[in-house]
This record gives sequence, structure tokens and C-alpha cells, in this order.
Amino acid sequence: MTELETCMKSLIDIFHRYADSDSDGTSLTKKELKKLCDKELPSFMKAQKNPEIVDRILKDLDNNKDEKLNFEEFLPFICSLMVAADEFCLSRGKKGKK
Amino acid sequence: MTELETCMKSLIDIFHRYADSDSDGTSLTKKELKKLCDKELPSFMKAQKNPEIVDRILKDLDNNKDEKLNFEEFLPFICSLMVAADEFCLSRGKKGKK
Repeated sequence: MTELETCMKSLIDIFHRYADSDSDGTSLTKKELKKLCDKELPSFMKAQKNPEIVDRILKDLDNNKDEKLNFEEFLPFICSLMVAADEFCLSRGKKGKK
Repeated sequence: MTELETCMKSLIDIFHRYADSDSDGTSLTKKELKKLCDKELPSFMKAQKNPEIVDRILKDLDNNKDEKLNFEEFLPFICSLMVAADEFCLSRGKKGKK
């Protein structure tokens, strides 16, 4: 597998590692999302002022209102973090060459 | 860094590896997108019947109509591939437990 394919597979695996902890292996409950954030995104969680951040993420992304996030609902969260990180790097002149 | 953070960083790095080959290091030209797809997504490219697939991807995702894909425009492409791969695995009963 290429580096990009490996990345994509890892993202799927990480999601299911946390989503599978209950009988519904296809979605993250609030508890599973909190555990994923705490374990996989410690810097992000530490930077949050809102103690209810996980509730907020769930509320914002739970399109089908089942109080869980399936993989497709979860991805915009990860994408927004990547875009923010990329813009941060660009603004500090690390990546982009104007 | 956690596994998820490493994945996210790699995705950003892979994008810039191809986007940086010209003076505009923040976006993929058609040529750069083609090179990324050929090198990083060979299985996807081999499975395509439409020889103009790269034109199609660019046309579909180029929201600001600058004939290039910035990182934010590029991510939906990767997300759609991951969702498709995840659904394929679920349908084959690898991941989800019903």
C-alpha cells in the first residue's frame, strides 16, 4: 500500500477501534467519541475551553440525529482539524511558498 | 504524536509533497493531482473506466474555480474514497457487528 492508502486505512481502523466497543460497531456513541478524543487528540482536547466540547461535536455532526456519529459523520471533524492545522502551518510560512 | 495525529499530519504532508512542485505550494494543479493519483492511489486509478477521471475530480471539487484544488477542496475526494472503502468492508462483514 502507498503512504496515502495506509493513512486512509489507519483512519478507518482508528474509527472502528473506538466504534466497536459496543454492539454497534458502525457508529461512535458520545462515550466512545469522548474516549477517542481523549486518547487520540489530547492536544486538541487540552486546548478546549468548553468542557462540553464532545457534546458540541456530536450535536454539530450528527446529521441523522441518532445521537451517534457514523464514519461519514465523523470525517468532517477530522477534516476541520486538518484544514486548521494546514492553515496554521501556512500562516507560519512552513508549507506554502507564496 | 498519537496514531490519529500522525495520520492527519501525513495526509497534510502528502498533499504538499505534490502541491509544492510548482511556485504555488498551496494547491494542486491538474498535473499535480494526476501525479498524486497515479503514485498514491494506483488501485483507484486502475479501477477507473473514465480516462478523464482527473479532469472530473478537479471539476467536481474546484469550488473557487481557479482550476486547482487547495487542501480543503482536496479532502472531500479522500473522504469519499474512505467512506466507500469503509462501506465495502462493512458490507463484507469485516468491520461492523450487526
